[in-house]
Amino acid sequence: MPFAAALPLQSGAAIRDYSLSFETYGRLNAKKSNAVLICHALNASHHVAGVYLGQDKSEGWWDNMIGPGKPLDTDKFFVIGVNNLGSCFGSTGPMHVNPDTGRVYGADFPVVTVEDWVNAQARLLDALGIQTLAAVMGGSLGGMQALSWALQYPDRVRHAVVVASAPNLTAENIAFNEVARRAITTDPDFHDGHFYQHGVIPKRGLRIARMIGHITYLSDDVMNEKFGRQLRESVRREGAGDYLFSTQEVEFQIESYLRYQGDKFAEYFDANTYLLITRALDYFDPARTYGGDLSQALARANCKFLLVSFTTDWRFSPKRSREIVKALLDNRCDVSYAEIDAPHGHDAFLLDDPRYMGVVRSYFDGIAKAVAA
Amino acid sequence: MPFAAALPLQSGAAIRDYSLSFETYGRLNAKKSNAVLICHALNASHHVAGVYLGQDKSEGWWDNMIGPGKPLDTDKFFVIGVNNLGSCFGSTGPMHVNPDTGRVYGADFPVVTVEDWVNAQARLLDALGIQTLAAVMGGSLGGMQALSWALQYPDRVRHAVVVASAPNLTAENIAFNEVARRAITTDPDFHDGHFYQHGVIPKRGLRIARMIGHITYLSDDVMNEKFGRQLRESVRREGAGDYLFSTQEVEFQIESYLRYQGDKFAEYFDANTYLLITRALDYFDPARTYGGDLSQALARANCKFLLVSFTTDWRFSPKRSREIVKALLDNRCDVSYAEIDAPHGHDAFLLDDPRYMGVVRSYFDGIAKAVAA
Repeated sequence: MPFAAALPLQSGAAIRDYSLSFETYGRLNAKKSNAVLICHALNASHHVAGVYLGQDKSEGWWDNMIGPGKPLDTDKFFVIGVNNLGSCFGSTGPMHVNPDTGRVYGADFPVVTVEDWVNAQARLLDALGIQTLAAVMGGSLGGMQALSWALQYPDRVRHAVVVASAPNLTAENIAFNEVARRAITTDPDFHDGHFYQHGVIPKRGLRIARMIGHITYLSDDVMNEKFGRQLRESVRREGAGDYLFSTQEVEFQIESYLRYQGDKFAEYFDANTYLLITRALDYFDPARTYGGDLSQALARANCKFLLVSFTTDWRFSPKRSREIVKALLDNRCDVSYAEIDAPHGHDAFLLDDPRYMGVVRSYFDGIAKAVAA
Repeated sequence: MPFAAALPLQSGAAIRDYSLSFETYGRLNAKKSNAVLICHALNASHHVAGVYLGQDKSEGWWDNMIGPGKPLDTDKFFVIGVNNLGSCFGSTGPMHVNPDTGRVYGADFPVVTVEDWVNAQARLLDALGIQTLAAVMGGSLGGMQALSWALQYPDRVRHAVVVASAPNLTAENIAFNEVARRAITTDPDFHDGHFYQHGVIPKRGLRIARMIGHITYLSDDVMNEKFGRQLRESVRREGAGDYLFSTQEVEFQIESYLRYQGDKFAEYFDANTYLLITRALDYFDPARTYGGDLSQALARANCKFLLVSFTTDWRFSPKRSREIVKALLDNRCDVSYAEIDAPHGHDAFLLDDPRYMGVVRSYFDGIAKAVAA
């Protein structure tokens, strides 16, 4: 959907003549009271659920969660998935033309924040004629957007579902982002972010960035369970379980997995988008303007909340979710909180844990009843 | 010290005409019974302690631990520091000439293992006329060497002091090593490990590798305490605490710290050495030939042990040290174990925690009494 009018950004810049890709699932009811907005994290898009024509199975990133009869039931709710500004899956991003210069944005794409994304999403709802969301929901960086919705548009959200998220990044979180960004920006093919016109892609950097990311998405436990110290099948066949004694060959299964993930990612993800999205993560910190006092920062919130965290998530640990819960309770907000004992680390928010799915299902069942009443 | 005779390596290869750099502190007693060998980790050398002529202060990496009147007291012990084969601080490594070809080794330097290092160290002791070590001591990868000494030369070691170490790497540990190696080997300046003759250094890769390493050396807690979400001084002055809204500028203090560490490291550390040492870490696994049974693997050990771990060390967590302790106890070995409640993560093994220092001091005091008796 095209938006001609300039969107003012937190940085002081603005972006105009941009477009947002979105998808909807289910039907908006007559009162327009059953809309649920889904916010995505780093590597995801507006294609949240469902199967495209000609596809065997869904490539929607939350298809296990959203659909007819699923925890977020599209027989009851009108679900909206939107690709964020600066992303690389359809909405206006660094690979598109800057109307002010007639040239591809590249590194000149304006820095966008979680707050900016929420403002852009609100404009999309305006265009769709939706004043109030039954719920806004997201995991990880998507959860930050859900939280920010509750603060920026307290009267337009009835429920916020914040999964595997945090009130801001820790120094360690920022550190991992910084290493990933440095891998990209120091790749000679990055060309200061204007690689498009050189006909190259900084794939080396993107691969490293993705490998680092993957380590932080998984728990130590699940990595040991899935890969442990196992050698690759081909290696094992050769030498009766013996090492290759090589510093560069892929020998352990975990190496093979990471390289595969890195290679795949570098084929489709945009390097400038990676920088933009990790920086939006770094910057998110609603307590910042309140001298670090999260309770004060969340005082504006006016909706009900469900927070979910996962015990083995060391990226956005349960401790971080509990900080949000505490700050909301300080403000006498209505908060449900589930800490799911799941082995998969941060990735758990995308996976099929029955307790997790059950918690979300029953929360949305409650919303559905209120909507129907 | 030069060694002409070929040293057979675990890989089946051998290395000849190599040299080991070493330093000694204190005096060997008449019975030659007070020698302590110190084994180093990734980024360290034979220069363990003491001040070189013309230096203001010690650049020895364990100078807080070793010296006159210090926990490992060089008034009582004869301490030997040795730089390992393949390292880049004096002993023969990838930057030296391969006597078989007359060309610089580069990536052709043979893959060396913890076991190979221990064999090379044993030859050095032979040359020094030392049959039996009062103790062998190391932290991290150095602790693996100390443990391996107890298995490879059970009759030549009386005590093994294994600090912040592990019986092998987890999948996550290997994963971090692999990302660091990929950053180096995919740097266009790496030239398949033969960058020396191109007159370049893969500094981009080395910087990334070091940044990743540093994240794993620190605890989340200490990172938050030291850096938190603080912005750099220069940034703070400009905009009253506001963000720069830039994806590439150094803005948070943690970014500045990591870049500095990366830059510094890339100036002096050898890229091929980085690959060799991380691979030695990956390969170390004494239980491997015993079907993963660590108790069986440690049955050969014949010395007494002190193990130390640090609560916030998530690289080699206390759990990993406890695995070693349990396996030693299964073999009715004499084991002391201290789990130090320190905030500094893996780095703690190099720092001045008084409880840690106290534990090591009293352990060596006990050895000193036995040696003197």
